[in-house]
Amino acid sequence: MRVLGIDCGTELTGYGVIDSDGRAHRIVAAGTIRTSPKATLGDRLNIIAAGLRQVIATHAPETGAVEEVFHSVNAKSALKLAHVRGVALLVLAEAGILYGEYSPLTIKKSVVGHGRAEKEQVQFMMRAILGTTAPVEQPDACDALAVAICHVTHIGRAAA
Amino acid sequence: MRVLGIDCGTELTGYGVIDSDGRAHRIVAAGTIRTSPKATLGDRLNIIAAGLRQVIATHAPETGAVEEVFHSVNAKSALKLAHVRGVALLVLAEAGILYGEYSPLTIKKSVVGHGRAEKEQVQFMMRAILGTTAPVEQPDACDALAVAICHVTHIGRAAA
Repeated sequence: MRVLGIDCGTELTGYGVIDSDGRAHRIVAAGTIRTSPKATLGDRLNIIAAGLRQVIATHAPETGAVEEVFHSVNAKSALKLAHVRGVALLVLAEAGILYGEYSPLTIKKSVVGHGRAEKEQVQFMMRAILGTTAPVEQPDACDALAVAICHVTHIGRAAA
Repeated sequence: MRVLGIDCGTELTGYGVIDSDGRAHRIVAAGTIRTSPKATLGDRLNIIAAGLRQVIATHAPETGAVEEVFHSVNAKSALKLAHVRGVALLVLAEAGILYGEYSPLTIKKSVVGHGRAEKEQVQFMMRAILGTTAPVEQPDACDALAVAICHVTHIGRAAA
């Protein structure tokens, strides 16, 4: 199964496409879409949408996964993030791709084994799971791959 | 000048297109885009995007205006609203339409004269400003027209 994981961000949106049978995972593509802080939010969202559409057109994922957004300590950035997330969900829906939504805790649990993992632990485990192809130098791409792995783990469990 | 005002909402998104010289305003189109609570958020956003694109294609507004979203008492609905707002800003940016953003207070001030106006006062004033064509029976369309009027008022002031 081919899965697209998306890690939403106003400045950097990570994406990760994996092929997986629920146990073994292979990276198909991973990277980040960068937008300029000088651009209007509309133009930044336009770049993110175009980037995600390109990833979908090139790699034809069968299913998608996106992190949930919570009301955090920083309400302003949570709201900004929700704008990007709206665009990500729109692009998935436009392409007819069903998606799963997971909390940061669930994502960390599924790759590290517990929900309180640090970012570095996630990256360490991503390298353990995906081998040297894991783009640990691109944290947002790495997070997107973690979302994708979380999704296949849950789909596998639901199907079992 | 032709202006598109958008009042974002997950269930009902209002739109209002007006022709205005900054003083006299005429309604070109106004209405609401309704989505089903049973649909996924992605599918709802898809319907909203398609609806707004249709309005833009039909009425070719030169500029747009959207209400700002604030962290409110109900954090969850503010986050949901921000998803819709992201899609609205995306659709405007895709069409190359520059937009203004206004707080609810600024919008009320520009149509009623003070920022603490009730919804009914806004509707009353919209009828006073726009005449019997004001769709007061569609509060979301009415709010969208108020956003549009707020925008031309500010543009006029900036140009003066």
